[in-house]
Amino acid sequence: MDPTSDKNIEVDDLEEIVIGGDLASLRRFLTLLHPADLAILFATLDRDHWPRVIHSLKVAEISDLMEELPDQLRDDLAELLSHEQLVDIFEEMASDDAADVIADLPEPLAEKVLASIPPEDRVEVETLLGYPEDSAGGLMQMELVSVRETATVQEAIESIRAAAGEVEDLHMVYVMDDAGRVCGLLPLDRLILASPTAPVSSVADRDIRTVRPEVDQEEVAQMFKRYDLVSMAVVDGEGRLLGRILHDDVVDVIEEEAEEDMLRMAGAEEPELIYSNRVFRIASVRIPWLLATIGGGLLSGALLWQFKVSFPQMLALLTFVPVIAAMGGNIGSQSSTIVVRGFATGRIDFHNLSQFLLRELAIGLIMGFFCGLVLTLTARIWHGDYLLALTAGLSMALAITASAITGVLVPFLFRSIRVDPAIAAGPLVTTANDVLGLAIYFSIAWLLIG
Amino acid sequence: MDPTSDKNIEVDDLEEIVIGGDLASLRRFLTLLHPADLAILFATLDRDHWPRVIHSLKVAEISDLMEELPDQLRDDLAELLSHEQLVDIFEEMASDDAADVIADLPEPLAEKVLASIPPEDRVEVETLLGYPEDSAGGLMQMELVSVRETATVQEAIESIRAAAGEVEDLHMVYVMDDAGRVCGLLPLDRLILASPTAPVSSVADRDIRTVRPEVDQEEVAQMFKRYDLVSMAVVDGEGRLLGRILHDDVVDVIEEEAEEDMLRMAGAEEPELIYSNRVFRIASVRIPWLLATIGGGLLSGALLWQFKVSFPQMLALLTFVPVIAAMGGNIGSQSSTIVVRGFATGRIDFHNLSQFLLRELAIGLIMGFFCGLVLTLTARIWHGDYLLALTAGLSMALAITASAITGVLVPFLFRSIRVDPAIAAGPLVTTANDVLGLAIYFSIAWLLIG
Repeated sequence: MDPTSDKNIEVDDLEEIVIGGDLASLRRFLTLLHPADLAILFATLDRDHWPRVIHSLKVAEISDLMEELPDQLRDDLAELLSHEQLVDIFEEMASDDAADVIADLPEPLAEKVLASIPPEDRVEVETLLGYPEDSAGGLMQMELVSVRETATVQEAIESIRAAAGEVEDLHMVYVMDDAGRVCGLLPLDRLILASPTAPVSSVADRDIRTVRPEVDQEEVAQMFKRYDLVSMAVVDGEGRLLGRILHDDVVDVIEEEAEEDMLRMAGAEEPELIYSNRVFRIASVRIPWLLATIGGGLLSGALLWQFKVSFPQMLALLTFVPVIAAMGGNIGSQSSTIVVRGFATGRIDFHNLSQFLLRELAIGLIMGFFCGLVLTLTARIWHGDYLLALTAGLSMALAITASAITGVLVPFLFRSIRVDPAIAAGPLVTTANDVLGLAIYFSIAWLLIG
Repeated sequence: MDPTSDKNIEVDDLEEIVIGGDLASLRRFLTLLHPADLAILFATLDRDHWPRVIHSLKVAEISDLMEELPDQLRDDLAELLSHEQLVDIFEEMASDDAADVIADLPEPLAEKVLASIPPEDRVEVETLLGYPEDSAGGLMQMELVSVRETATVQEAIESIRAAAGEVEDLHMVYVMDDAGRVCGLLPLDRLILASPTAPVSSVADRDIRTVRPEVDQEEVAQMFKRYDLVSMAVVDGEGRLLGRILHDDVVDVIEEEAEEDMLRMAGAEEPELIYSNRVFRIASVRIPWLLATIGGGLLSGALLWQFKVSFPQMLALLTFVPVIAAMGGNIGSQSSTIVVRGFATGRIDFHNLSQFLLRELAIGLIMGFFCGLVLTLTARIWHGDYLLALTAGLSMALAITASAITGVLVPFLFRSIRVDPAIAAGPLVTTANDVLGLAIYFSIAWLLIG
């Protein structure tokens, strides 16, 4: 009864049926699967078995499968298909998916396919390809149903009927004025309950949200979240309808943006690559960040080397180097993470920077006082030297406060020069804060002891 | 024309109209705002002005505003309202929002309100309060439209008409069999196009996803993402319909889970608190993680102190302590972040642990070889000592590889003992990796030099 139980179908089942079975039972098995589940099984299936599975699928099913596959596998699948098959598949796809898939195909193949699909589809796909992938235009699809506000409810229903095979996830009909500008929308439940002879203008909802195609996808996602939207109209400068964005694509954006931020904070990027098996490429992406860490670490070492002659208590002093360096890095990345997340969810902005900075300064002072005290007591007990204990504790307190402040300022700085602030929470700034902590430590040692 | 331009309305406008204006112009201003925008303005408005705004809103509008406010402000607003107003407001709210709001109210107030709302609403809210907040039951609402599969399309439309005032965001009608189990659903566009006399069973879509109320919200979110759902039925063990979950609540879950993971990685938690102004509470949440860092840092210092007698080259050796410690922590948190994100998006699981571990080992070896080489050369040039250079470089390579491995294993370990793996990417494990790096360094120094 419960269709979610097909989650339990494992790759082994597909492999077994592909290898062992007749085509009829393979076909039966495949039709039971949701395209999203088929894509997961397909992705882990041995490539040798792909042609047999493809043979058992109808064009519309291959099209659905292709939409669900990750980029790399999509290209591999495209290579197995004839040019005619590809053209048929693209005719089945929604315009936004077709554009996404074609954008990822190797150039010559993409051009060949584009040249073969019907002109009206081609124009749509080419229009969509003209927008950056991460803009409202890159998210939208052209399939939708719209009517003039002077039409009747019955005419609106006829428009839906005419579009039935073309438009999926039809949650509402867009309403346009005489000049072709979007002026309202008609959710289907209102349409069902309205009298067939009523004019659309009398039942349309006028409180609508629209977006221009050049708007960044992160802003689109924030609008969907704020207004709980299922779909949103994309309009040009004159307010004319260009297409619509659907909720499921926005969900992907939210995931993607969160993922990018997080990986960037860890000094890694490009989820598609990071979760692949290309170990040399992955290492090469991660190494530059590590070089920054090496640079910072060596700088700390050089600082340390620099001060070696000044202090007879050098060795005791050195025992607190790891803790002060680690703490600076740690606090800085805590504060930066909080700021970066605050940017992404809209909680923090330039206009509350000073307020947030004061708040973080206060928190830094409290944490600094507390941790400084702990370190002073520990140092006093361990090495028995008051001055050394005071030096370590004071440095700790200052390093924590300073890192809290740089942890807030650096993401703001990055944002104002249009660098992704998520980088600020990454190894680069962590390392800078390590060095900052040690510089504070040695300066205070030099003042108090040296 | 463009309704998104009301984004430009600033808090100053509201304040100005509240203070300066007559009630009519305040009312006119408020009706122009989407509840989500009103909530943002309201949250930053001086509390003294709240009563005047509340006075200008209708019950349904206060109800909408309340749904959009953060918990803390919601409680503050509730305190301004009379008991009768609160009861009216809860009758306006969807069951899931009412349950969420009541769950956050102070206990005595919540009980008083619950006792006063109509019995059928009370039963609904109490049922929902019985489910954990982060489960499918905690996300669902009871408002929905369902029909028997033996009904006609016309009867389904009549059910929608009967529910019109009650149910919002009605994207589909749920179809039930004779035993009251969900057996299909009827999207509204199909309903519109079907003949009124056709039986529902002939047009219903049978390929449905359902979920049990006890399922974790993260799993619910993954199903919405995978199957591009707008809503999902929640059913009991017999498959009987209990309620439905809507896409906008799932979007909030996705945001919330990503945010929690990220803040937890930074050794902070509870977004509601972290972005508030309660600096002492915030410091007290962040300090325990810092104590872990202090503990680890001091352990590193102790290690260093321990080895001071063995090595005449101690000082030169110490110049590489910061870089090796930082690198271990860095790599470990990179790897952990990748694993934690992989868990959340479903890319990594127990069944591909060994594959992922091998991959990360390979990447660790490549990065370790590279960074080790860099450090060896640097150390050779700086201090002119072959053995010291070799010690530093080899330690770096081993520390990187070891940290990459612990970075993968610790999140898996945490997950298997049901601790949130996001903690693994936080300061705790970073510090542990710092110590591990130094332990490796001193051990190798002891073997090669000591």
